[in-house]
Amino acid sequence: MAKLDPILDFHFAALGDSTRREILSRLARGSATVSELAATHDMALPSFMGHLKKLEEAGLIVSRKEGRVRICTLAPDAFVPAQDWLSAQRDLWNGRLDRLDDYVTNLMKERNS
Amino acid sequence: MAKLDPILDFHFAALGDSTRREILSRLARGSATVSELAATHDMALPSFMGHLKKLEEAGLIVSRKEGRVRICTLAPDAFVPAQDWLSAQRDLWNGRLDRLDDYVTNLMKERNS
Repeated sequence: MAKLDPILDFHFAALGDSTRREILSRLARGSATVSELAATHDMALPSFMGHLKKLEEAGLIVSRKEGRVRICTLAPDAFVPAQDWLSAQRDLWNGRLDRLDDYVTNLMKERNS
Repeated sequence: MAKLDPILDFHFAALGDSTRREILSRLARGSATVSELAATHDMALPSFMGHLKKLEEAGLIVSRKEGRVRICTLAPDAFVPAQDWLSAQRDLWNGRLDRLDDYVTNLMKERNS
């Protein structure tokens, strides 16, 4: 878990902004050029490029230059580390509820015996 | 989706820090007092309290005072919005791969016919 921590810091921080989440949602549907991505956001291009940079630094997207255009693609398994961490917490939480359930069941058995 | 956006901003931003994730992992195992939580972190108490405040403001944890101690608990369904958003993106991504698969299959059929 500790080994993955810096990745999770970057991933979750990158996900904590609605513009960046919209970019990821768009790219989950397929690759797009920077111009295509920027067209749906009412934002100065340098600010928009800053969001793309943050996503690329986090390893959530990759980009390549083709002639004069830059094409962005969702990184393979981009959401796996975040999903794995969240699932692990839910398992811990559910395990706790199961243990509580067992405890109450045993308590009631003892009372009725 | 848009309605959930501010919640997701807070949740993902709160998750983008390893100290806060460790607090959440601890609370997923069961409630704890502020002192118990702080004991495992080598950090000045005001900084640690800042992390708890951020988690509480994000709605990921709740706390209550019992006498002189404050007890923290993981909020019910704390991770659901983040998990739902991530799952939706994976579904979009997998749908894209399925369509690509169909396209290639049809292309091969046409070539072989």
